Amino acid sequence: MATVKLRTDEEIAAVPAVKAVFDDIRSTRKSDFVNNFWRALANQPDLLERTWASVKRVMIEPGALDPLTKELVYIAVSTANSCSYCVHSHTAAARVKGLSDGQYAEFLAVISMAAETNTLASSLQVPVDQEFLIS
Amino acid sequence: MATVKLRTDEEIAAVPAVKAVFDDIRSTRKSDFVNNFWRALANQPDLLERTWASVKRVMIEPGALDPLTKELVYIAVSTANSCSYCVHSHTAAARVKGLSDGQYAEFLAVISMAAETNTLASSLQVPVDQEFLIS
Amino acid sequence: MATVKLRTDEEIAAVPAVKAVFDDIRSTRKSDFVNNFWRALANQPDLLERTWASVKRVMIEPGALDPLTKELVYIAVSTANSCSYCVHSHTAAARVKGLSDGQYAEFLAVISMAAETNTLASSLQVPVDQEFLIS
Amino acid sequence: MATVKLRTDEEIAAVPAVKAVFDDIRSTRKSDFVNNFWRALANQPDLLERTWASVKRVMIEPGALDPLTKELVYIAVSTANSCSYCVHSHTAAARVKGLSDGQYAEFLAVISMAAETNTLASSLQVPVDQEFLIS
Amino acid sequence: MATVKLRTDEEIAAVPAVKAVFDDIRSTRKSDFVNNFWRALANQPDLLERTWASVKRVMIEPGALDPLTKELVYIAVSTANSCSYCVHSHTAAARVKGLSDGQYAEFLAVISMAAETNTLASSLQVPVDQEFLIS
Amino acid sequence: MATVKLRTDEEIAAVPAVKAVFDDIRSTRKSDFVNNFWRALANQPDLLERTWASVKRVMIEPGALDPLTKELVYIAVSTANSCSYCVHSHTAAARVKGLSDGQYAEFLAVISMAAETNTLASSLQVPVDQEFLIS
Repeated sequence: MATVKLRTDEEIAAVPAVKAVFDDIRSTRKSDFVNNFWRALANQPDLLERTWASVKRVMIEPGALDPLTKELVYIAVSTANSCSYCVHSHTAAARVKGLSDGQYAEFLAVISMAAETNTLASSLQVPVDQEFLIS
Repeated sequence: MATVKLRTDEEIAAVPAVKAVFDDIRSTRKSDFVNNFWRALANQPDLLERTWASVKRVMIEPGALDPLTKELVYIAVSTANSCSYCVHSHTAAARVKGLSDGQYAEFLAVISMAAETNTLASSLQVPVDQEFLIS
Repeated sequence: MATVKLRTDEEIAAVPAVKAVFDDIRSTRKSDFVNNFWRALANQPDLLERTWASVKRVMIEPGALDPLTKELVYIAVSTANSCSYCVHSHTAAARVKGLSDGQYAEFLAVISMAAETNTLASSLQVPVDQEFLIS
Repeated sequence: MATVKLRTDEEIAAVPAVKAVFDDIRSTRKSDFVNNFWRALANQPDLLERTWASVKRVMIEPGALDPLTKELVYIAVSTANSCSYCVHSHTAAARVKGLSDGQYAEFLAVISMAAETNTLASSLQVPVDQEFLIS
Repeated sequence: MATVKLRTDEEIAAVPAVKAVFDDIRSTRKSDFVNNFWRALANQPDLLERTWASVKRVMIEPGALDPLTKELVYIAVSTANSCSYCVHSHTAAARVKGLSDGQYAEFLAVISMAAETNTLASSLQVPVDQEFLIS
Repeated sequence: MATVKLRTDEEIAAVPAVKAVFDDIRSTRKSDFVNNFWRALANQPDLLERTWASVKRVMIEPGALDPLTKELVYIAVSTANSCSYCVHSHTAAARVKGLSDGQYAEFLAVISMAAETNTLASSLQVPVDQEFLIS
């Protein structure tokens, strides 16, 4: 279905720069499974390397937000952007990071209500209150 | 700028159904300030009432996610939907709820990285891995 | 504010191909007022001509949908696309074509509910029912 | 394909709050068929109940806009939001409510022209005319 | 999967106005293959005719931009709009027009970086610099 | 207007990590002018540094696509994402890089036609042809 070939482990092993990224994905995630997103990006070694560095830095290394919050924010963006692949892969990731059914229901309530009120504000073209502006 | 008139407190006081919602907004938020979004919606009493009930239920009543996480998820959706009003009003709300500079920087890193990888997944049309599907 | 100059009537009168389109806009709409959208497009005579032909054919000539329904559909798309200019200009047009306050309130309820349920369907990645497919 | 299980009639019958909503969907629509959207939402009883109440109020109860116009507006939003499920389910609903081939062709002409002119207005960043502003 | 029937060559041959467009698509592209987009549009002869005229004028006739650049711009818009069909069909078209692997990798880097910085500018609500405005 | 303060040259000079990025922006672009996007990001030194590294790598360093093509692709994405700031700043950049009026007119024709046909493909839910799939 992709616009490029999804590279197999055999093909990946043949390109050292690509193999190095896949090795790091596997050791960082402590799992042998590498999902299709990386197999598609494996056709562009430079882009693969920079994208993984960015994902590792933002989603995996410890930061000011906890891992589950970051996954929820990621899914929120992906849903608004209608990225089917991203919604599937990060909802699965959120469950691995402990998303409970109650949290998921609350999350769905927030994103659907946000879309609803975004639509009202945009259709009414509500001007921003002075109180919200940073001087 | 709006496509409707922004109703003043005087006009609101003249319509009991609208006044009741504004009174509840003020007492729930423990603040006299009511932002333009509600003043625009005040032209449609039924929609105003239902929208406030929804926002109150989802964003204000205690739930499975903490209030700051819900604001971040809301801003993520609003940014992806390019809702200028919503980004302004909820970034202000997040600060009131304790968003630190470090958390905001991390949040910005997550939403921009999500948009970047959403774009890669959509342009490459990556097929969803079997591993992510709920049987 | 535009990325191009908004052409004045004097400048438009100097380019016959552009003047012809402006004359047709004025006579078709039976109004001397020509809004900024056309003054921006006036920098690209060929695009101006084709765009006006398309708008005239779709929005002004009689068709299978009544003029007000077409305006509402147009505003719905413009809101979802966050096109501030388009929301403003076509909400004004809808009022000229008779949009009542009650119809506007109902319209706002539909588009905001649509955005809400779109978000739920996309986040849950609901598969399309066989019953909805055209064989 | 969904990020949650699609609940069967048997599972639904086991949860009274969910069963009550499904019973109301069936009696309101006078049909035994309940589509996947509701079977996915059945995992979150509270969200299911509020979403159905909203859909019933906006799309089914009589209002200021006729049922077919509301379906067209709904499809317009769903198309702009790239919600595949929503486009399929509501195009099917519009046909049930009497959408003719001629009306559908005209509708397609309006939404595609709207997207075209939205793009021109956004790329040219056309400033809103004073004439369109509500004082 | 479509919301309309995809018309076969036999059905197309039966409607002269539709057949004329298909004949022109085939002779213009010098290929007997006509893709599903046109087979879906074949249900609306007038829309088919106007859409093909527009595509032919913009994408096929010589213009100020070279054919490959136009395909890349087209894919960029389609990716941002999450149009799966359009991404697939125009990525295939770009390859036919000579898109190299290196160009594709660079293109992917540009569109994903654009989405990333769009998100930052929208979330920070950065005001436009005076220097960028056309007076 | 921003959700953060736009940092002045004086404030920037006070933070070495931020000053280093601003110095590099100025020397790379051979211009003293630094636009608001970077002044907003200056509040988050780490994000500023990584974003500039990405923009410099993708938009400024020589690659497989020429600089003007990259700007057009960037504007296409920004328009579809309704990022007003990005449309303004990169349309200005494209003019600096030699965009002619004829090329701009052709570009506008491509992006608006893309949005139009994206809408048709999404509303008709056209299935992807086997011929477009990469095996």
